[in-house]
Amino acid sequence: MEAGSDPSEEQLLQRPWLPVSISGCQLLVKSCFSDTAYRILLTDMHCVWEERMEAAAIQSRAQELNRRLRASVEAFFSHLCEVVQPCLSGGELTGGKAQIFLTRQDNGNINVRLKSELAELPFYWEFRCSPAPVALACAQLVRPLLVISRMLQQQVKQLGGLLVRKDAEIQDYRENGATLSRERLQTEVFEESTYREHFMATTLPFLWSESLDSLGFDADLQQLYTTAIAHRKRKLSEERSVQEEQPAAESSADVVSARSEAANIRKQNHNKQDETTDVKTTNRPTMPKSDMSIPAERKSSKAKKKKVGLFR
Amino acid sequence: MEAGSDPSEEQLLQRPWLPVSISGCQLLVKSCFSDTAYRILLTDMHCVWEERMEAAAIQSRAQELNRRLRASVEAFFSHLCEVVQPCLSGGELTGGKAQIFLTRQDNGNINVRLKSELAELPFYWEFRCSPAPVALACAQLVRPLLVISRMLQQQVKQLGGLLVRKDAEIQDYRENGATLSRERLQTEVFEESTYREHFMATTLPFLWSESLDSLGFDADLQQLYTTAIAHRKRKLSEERSVQEEQPAAESSADVVSARSEAANIRKQNHNKQDETTDVKTTNRPTMPKSDMSIPAERKSSKAKKKKVGLFR
Repeated sequence: MEAGSDPSEEQLLQRPWLPVSISGCQLLVKSCFSDTAYRILLTDMHCVWEERMEAAAIQSRAQELNRRLRASVEAFFSHLCEVVQPCLSGGELTGGKAQIFLTRQDNGNINVRLKSELAELPFYWEFRCSPAPVALACAQLVRPLLVISRMLQQQVKQLGGLLVRKDAEIQDYRENGATLSRERLQTEVFEESTYREHFMATTLPFLWSESLDSLGFDADLQQLYTTAIAHRKRKLSEERSVQEEQPAAESSADVVSARSEAANIRKQNHNKQDETTDVKTTNRPTMPKSDMSIPAERKSSKAKKKKVGLFR
Repeated sequence: MEAGSDPSEEQLLQRPWLPVSISGCQLLVKSCFSDTAYRILLTDMHCVWEERMEAAAIQSRAQELNRRLRASVEAFFSHLCEVVQPCLSGGELTGGKAQIFLTRQDNGNINVRLKSELAELPFYWEFRCSPAPVALACAQLVRPLLVISRMLQQQVKQLGGLLVRKDAEIQDYRENGATLSRERLQTEVFEESTYREHFMATTLPFLWSESLDSLGFDADLQQLYTTAIAHRKRKLSEERSVQEEQPAAESSADVVSARSEAANIRKQNHNKQDETTDVKTTNRPTMPKSDMSIPAERKSSKAKKKKVGLFR
């Protein structure tokens, strides 16, 4: 199933995975609340759970859990949104009286139970989430992670190429007798295989140990996720606008909102990684766009491929 | 569910995803044939399917599909292995008479049907694969892809840092009056944000268009997958050997075989990516291990974390 074919799945796809801790359990959450309907996705990276609810089912569960309360589904739903949305967006529960719990069921489901107050009476809610279809995990995790991996892999290749070129430049200066004024500025020749070998030996074993607050899906990866999805969406809208002759104006606003959501995660999470941009080198011009070591033939052949897909 | 808890899942985890084309359908396959039992995983990156079969079920399906053939389950199974294993390993069907077909069922299942000859009679087999539990997709795709992403992300950071240091060295030479003997050796200053922005604009849109033969999971990523899993396994074995006081000798052989399988994929696939290591710079010493810009504090704090996990 293509993710783009289901509007609520497409909507979820554009959201980042927000880290949430409930009852000591670390999860990543996506949720989508519309008019008296919601869809919620949770993952601990070992399973993905979901629940989809619409007006009638929400009304009936609200009555089942709150026998003494009589209210319209709109009233129940708007209260639910008010209480639970901040929590599912990685923030705190609003109101001191609201409480949230998570219980794992024997059948593999998880229940997220909520207790708050509505019109001075206790209000209960339960998200009863069952394991998601594998196709949903493919759309929301596997395919985006694959694109992120390919993206980073290309960057590693390009940066390796740039390092080799810098070394050639440095070698030329040195062969012509240049010396450094400060010894500590001297770098060693970059050799890809030595670098990779050392990297694998020293860094890889630690990457399997998840950092608790993000399950390994840290703020930087979240931002790549959002960027990757935004580009996918832009591409889809372009294709649609070609096919349907409609402008794709709406999508850019969504992209902006997805970006600012990702920026929020960056603020919320503790960014433990070292920054590599703190050394400023301002004396020389910035890199022109032609100097990114992306061979021109390759770009044009890929663009051709896309065109074929568009008009077949 | 932890993948390590199920031996056949652990076995599958160590295998690479092999690209296979059946009836014009591009898939990635993992399979595991043991004594009169098999487990097979297929994905088109939109869904993951699986089938697990043991002796009794294999015997009964073999009889159902081959009424005229009378044979022991061992005979059926060894013939099946002989015919299908090369095909599921990304190679060709052995024997000119064997044929393989794929059909998608309305219920979301896929059937891989096989026709060959056993004792000069037609022999039929069907892999009846249904969508895999989402936990399996998490173990076999999501978590490894997340580790690959984190690994590459760290490399991008480190290489960016190295480029900044090279620029500082170059700037020092130039400030002291050095000039290049060949103008074309001059590189531009590396600026991470400019680089990333340009990369996103030019490369990202093309990463969503899958290359047909690998579904985007190309040979280089396959190798990273194998490496990541091997490191995970080594770590698990070390932990187990500490806990159970057993040697982890067996695992290293598996790692080697997984590596050679990955090497085979590299040969099979067309590697379309540009190589960055063709410029040789031999005049200066290779990079010592201490010079990889992994801050020492960080390494030691991570190592501490691991130790806590090991003995808790």
